[in-house]
Amino acid sequence: MRILIEDVNILIDDKIVENKNILIENDIIKQISDSKSFERIDYIIDGKNKIALPGLVNTHTHLAMTLFRGFADDLPLEEWLEEKIWPQEAKLTADDVYWGSLLGICEMIRGGTIAFSDMYFFMDEMAKAVAESGIKASLSVGMIGIAGDENETLNRGVSFAKNWHNAEDGRIRVMLGPHAPYTCPPSFLEKVIDKAIEMSLGIHTHLSETYLEVENIKNMYGLTPIRLMDRVGLFNVPVLAAHCVFVDDEEIEILSEKGVGVAHNPQSNLKLASGVAPVKKMLEKGVKVGLGTDGPASNNNLDMWEEIRLVATLHKGVERDPICVPARDALIMATKNGMEILGFENSGIIKEGYKADLILVDVNKPHFYPRHNLVSHLVYSASSSDVDTVIVDGRILMEKRELKTLDEEKIMYEAEKRAFELIKKS
Amino acid sequence: MRILIEDVNILIDDKIVENKNILIENDIIKQISDSKSFERIDYIIDGKNKIALPGLVNTHTHLAMTLFRGFADDLPLEEWLEEKIWPQEAKLTADDVYWGSLLGICEMIRGGTIAFSDMYFFMDEMAKAVAESGIKASLSVGMIGIAGDENETLNRGVSFAKNWHNAEDGRIRVMLGPHAPYTCPPSFLEKVIDKAIEMSLGIHTHLSETYLEVENIKNMYGLTPIRLMDRVGLFNVPVLAAHCVFVDDEEIEILSEKGVGVAHNPQSNLKLASGVAPVKKMLEKGVKVGLGTDGPASNNNLDMWEEIRLVATLHKGVERDPICVPARDALIMATKNGMEILGFENSGIIKEGYKADLILVDVNKPHFYPRHNLVSHLVYSASSSDVDTVIVDGRILMEKRELKTLDEEKIMYEAEKRAFELIKKS
Repeated sequence: MRILIEDVNILIDDKIVENKNILIENDIIKQISDSKSFERIDYIIDGKNKIALPGLVNTHTHLAMTLFRGFADDLPLEEWLEEKIWPQEAKLTADDVYWGSLLGICEMIRGGTIAFSDMYFFMDEMAKAVAESGIKASLSVGMIGIAGDENETLNRGVSFAKNWHNAEDGRIRVMLGPHAPYTCPPSFLEKVIDKAIEMSLGIHTHLSETYLEVENIKNMYGLTPIRLMDRVGLFNVPVLAAHCVFVDDEEIEILSEKGVGVAHNPQSNLKLASGVAPVKKMLEKGVKVGLGTDGPASNNNLDMWEEIRLVATLHKGVERDPICVPARDALIMATKNGMEILGFENSGIIKEGYKADLILVDVNKPHFYPRHNLVSHLVYSASSSDVDTVIVDGRILMEKRELKTLDEEKIMYEAEKRAFELIKKS
Repeated sequence: MRILIEDVNILIDDKIVENKNILIENDIIKQISDSKSFERIDYIIDGKNKIALPGLVNTHTHLAMTLFRGFADDLPLEEWLEEKIWPQEAKLTADDVYWGSLLGICEMIRGGTIAFSDMYFFMDEMAKAVAESGIKASLSVGMIGIAGDENETLNRGVSFAKNWHNAEDGRIRVMLGPHAPYTCPPSFLEKVIDKAIEMSLGIHTHLSETYLEVENIKNMYGLTPIRLMDRVGLFNVPVLAAHCVFVDDEEIEILSEKGVGVAHNPQSNLKLASGVAPVKKMLEKGVKVGLGTDGPASNNNLDMWEEIRLVATLHKGVERDPICVPARDALIMATKNGMEILGFENSGIIKEGYKADLILVDVNKPHFYPRHNLVSHLVYSASSSDVDTVIVDGRILMEKRELKTLDEEKIMYEAEKRAFELIKKS
């Protein structure tokens, strides 16, 4: 299969390169050229008035929580979790997770997200949804290590990895997913780390999301979560650490030195009243920061453009520094950094020989005019609905805003039906 | 002209009332009914899968600054203003302001904004653009009172008010627009206040936007900006005060007691590194808060949904209070409060006898599913592109996302051409 995207502007590094032609052969960007005279082209996409950029990467979500979108908002945290979310989650079936995941994938593709990282349960069903949709994902079984059935939990995560890691021609990757320091004691984490080393897997976990978590861990172990994880040896494997809202300077050094990938979820951290992660300092110290939406019960959507806009404005305001987190950094976080953190190689930038993982953004709209600086417009003015076309591994998942691999109407219907039934169940 | 919106869900107060029919007669909501058997209907709009809500109100912007969108980002404030924005503004012509305003109005209508408040120059041209488009506006000539030509400046503002206040059947309103305490000394402000009282006009001004402004005013006058304005007597007329980022508890009391309308511009305040206004306290003290985007050079768009989402999440995060600024409050700020602050009567809510100022949001999209709580979805998940239809004073300005009163392609072309030429001019 050879696809030619004609007359398109391309985001390369932090510049827009104008009026090029992109030849895609199977899953690879074969050539970026001034000429469009290629032979044997199977399909042509008109790139006029569009920007090609690497697809967005959502480094932290819980996709099936689409089913709880808007179910419980504007509540105190404990009430939200303990009285609303956990009791509903306890009723979830594999089938629910399958349809909730598909609903989330529809939304993500529509917004130009081409890869995501997730930690949840019934992950076989989520993996099936990923396989069907054509999107990329790094999936983890969420593991709680305090229930007495540690080994069974670990086996579930390991078995999922055996079944799905590098499945679908490498489009699905797996990490081990110990939930958090407050649900996974060091003894359990050590077993997880051993398994991760043995199987060459990364680890996806939540770290230092709330002030209370940090205080509790300090009281239990005499160390902050990041320091505790460092001592346990977690950072000896590739780690995706979600949140890291409460981290001091020394902890930021640790994250940087150990190459930990941080999933920064600015909107979720605001909505759940956690706080604002010190991203300015993280970037100064060279921490690899990606962006995430977190689950749709705490966001309440999967819109990465909102996270891009927020990371590029929030820290300016909170740090009182109008030049921190410039536009180019926000885009790198949402694309290249994300792909690296998820472990996908040869992706995250538009380059010959790299994976054909890209999106086209339609800039022929009032909010992109005048076109003084399209990089700036992508960060400070674009939105999900501007994404026209989505291509993953050379396969078109959306074109002219029409989904090509998923039956959206059916998915909305089936997911909603299950969500409503779930809540009715006692 | 009688328009019937059939089978629509309506946002009334903070509830969704399902499956109603809205009869619009000329510029008025004539009836909200279970039945759709009306006679002499000129035009029917299908409201299925849509929510009717009051149109959004942008309480503070500088519309013609669309021309500088993306022209200068990620810069220190002084450099941005003094080296980039002011030199460009000095070159602006009346014609530039006309086309820049039209571009902004296209974008606003597309996002469901039906009224805005603006302070700029060449305001006759902006008023013409407003007149042509069908949108509502409260316009002010921005007045600087320190240039030595105080009387001429004031006369310009007054003369604009004489020409345009209550024009277009009341669709255009005028306020006097003394720019800010640091550009308008008390002696000038007193003249403005006298004129406002004489002509029964409101006043639109910038107040306490930055820490530096507050320090400077304190050094000059021995009082903070709010206290200085209170002593000068500004708050004896209806005032729209933009920003109010740095206000202490006593100042919040003054704003509340004097019924000052505050235009809160959360995204601009973040991007320009001003800070975060104490909106939680303002709401607790009963201050009338509206939302605004500020100018598109400091935002960089005119998207009120972003401001709605931000006001409902930012303060939760910064105040570490997950229940402050709930969804319903965010919607009231963006609709009812905005209309009241702009001085438009019988608008801002959907009610029989009120102005037919409303929008339809299409909720048949993945990010609105499952429909547990559509009020929550409007605040935490909706975006500009979900707005399907916009009606102002009973006139359809957009339907099925097609603008009905403006030639968008031409406006984008003309505005961009002028913006590019402006920057080339020495």
